Amino acid sequence: MSELSKQLTFILELDRLKAVYRQSLVKTDNNRQENSAEHSWHIAMLAQTLGQYADEPVNISRVTHMLLLHDIVEIDAGDTFAFAQQQDLDAQEKKELDAANRIFGLLPQAQYQETLNLWLEFEAAKTVDARFAKAMDCILPLLQNMNNEGGSWAIHKVKKSQVINRNRHLNGLAPTLWTFVCEQIAIAVANGWLIDD
Amino acid sequence: MSELSKQLTFILELDRLKAVYRQSLVKTDNNRQENSAEHSWHIAMLAQTLGQYADEPVNISRVTHMLLLHDIVEIDAGDTFAFAQQQDLDAQEKKELDAANRIFGLLPQAQYQETLNLWLEFEAAKTVDARFAKAMDCILPLLQNMNNEGGSWAIHKVKKSQVINRNRHLNGLAPTLWTFVCEQIAIAVANGWLIDD
Repeated sequence: MSELSKQLTFILELDRLKAVYRQSLVKTDNNRQENSAEHSWHIAMLAQTLGQYADEPVNISRVTHMLLLHDIVEIDAGDTFAFAQQQDLDAQEKKELDAANRIFGLLPQAQYQETLNLWLEFEAAKTVDARFAKAMDCILPLLQNMNNEGGSWAIHKVKKSQVINRNRHLNGLAPTLWTFVCEQIAIAVANGWLIDD
Repeated sequence: MSELSKQLTFILELDRLKAVYRQSLVKTDNNRQENSAEHSWHIAMLAQTLGQYADEPVNISRVTHMLLLHDIVEIDAGDTFAFAQQQDLDAQEKKELDAANRIFGLLPQAQYQETLNLWLEFEAAKTVDARFAKAMDCILPLLQNMNNEGGSWAIHKVKKSQVINRNRHLNGLAPTLWTFVCEQIAIAVANGWLIDD
C-alpha cells in the first residue's frame, strides 16, 4: 500500500470519531450530546484563542496538534466520563493505548511514531505543551456547564473537589485562567450545580 | 469587558457551529448530516497528515488555523452547498463577510484583526497556505463521497466538471494529490456517481 493510501485510510477511519458521544451537551443544538470530533475542534480553537495566558513558553501549534488528535483513541475505546470511578478510568487507559497503536498504526511508519509520541506526551501531561493542552480540555466543559445550568456536572452530581483536581494543570501554568476557574467553581457551588465536597 | 471575557464569549459563541449542518453525510453515524464543527476538525487533521505533498513551502500550522476557523462564518450565514447556483454563492459571500466581522469582532481588537485577516486570506485563496487549505477542504468531501457510493454528489446530481474546478488548487501545488483526485473522479463517473459533463 502506498504512503498516500495509508494516510487516506487513516483519514477515513477518523470519520468514526463523529459517532463517539460524550457526556457534554450542545446547548445550541437542543442539548443533544456532543461528539468527540466537534469537541476536538472546539478545544483547538480554545488553545488558539487563549495562548497568551501561559506563563511558560508554549508552542500553540504543537498544543493544537495534540488537541486535534487527543481523543482519536475513543474510536475504539469509547468515551469515559471524566468523573467516572477510578477503576473505570484505569481500565480505559489500557484500551486507549491499544487503540492508539491500531489507529495511528494505519499511518506510514514515521508518521505513526510521531503521532503516537505526541499522544503519549499529551497523556503523560508532563511537558508545558501537554499541560496547557490538558488545561484546554478541562476548561471547555467547565465553560459549557457554567453556561448551561450545571450541564453534565448537575446530571452526574459531580463534586467541587473533582473539578478542582481536574483543572490543577492551570495552577502555576496560567494563573489568570486558574483564578477564573476557581471563581467559576465557587459560583457553581453557590448555584447547587456542584456538590460542596 | 476584560480581554478574557471577550475571548470566552467568542468561545461560547463557537458552540453554534455544531448546529450548522452540511450536505456531507457521516457514513459511520447512520448517514446523518455532518456539522461544520466536526468537518473543521476532520480537515485540520487532513492538513496535518498530508503536508508532505505540497510542492511549495507550506506552513501547516497556519493552514491548520485557517481550516479551524474557515467555517465559523456559517454560524450566521449558514452552509451553502459547494455546487449551488452561482447567484446563491455570490449572495453567500456578502453574508459571510458580515458574519466574520460580527463573530471575530467578539474577540479583543488585535486578535479580531489577526483572525479576520487569516480568514480573508483563506477566502482569497492566493497564498500557498490558503491554496493548500482550500485543497484540504475539497479533498475531504471527495473522499467521503467516494467511500459512500457517491454520497452528496449522487444526491445532488453533481457534474464532473464542477468537481474538477473545485479541486483546481491542487493542480501545480500538490501534483500527487491532483493525480489521485483525477483518478477518483474518473472512477466516480464510471460508477454513475458524477454526471459526465
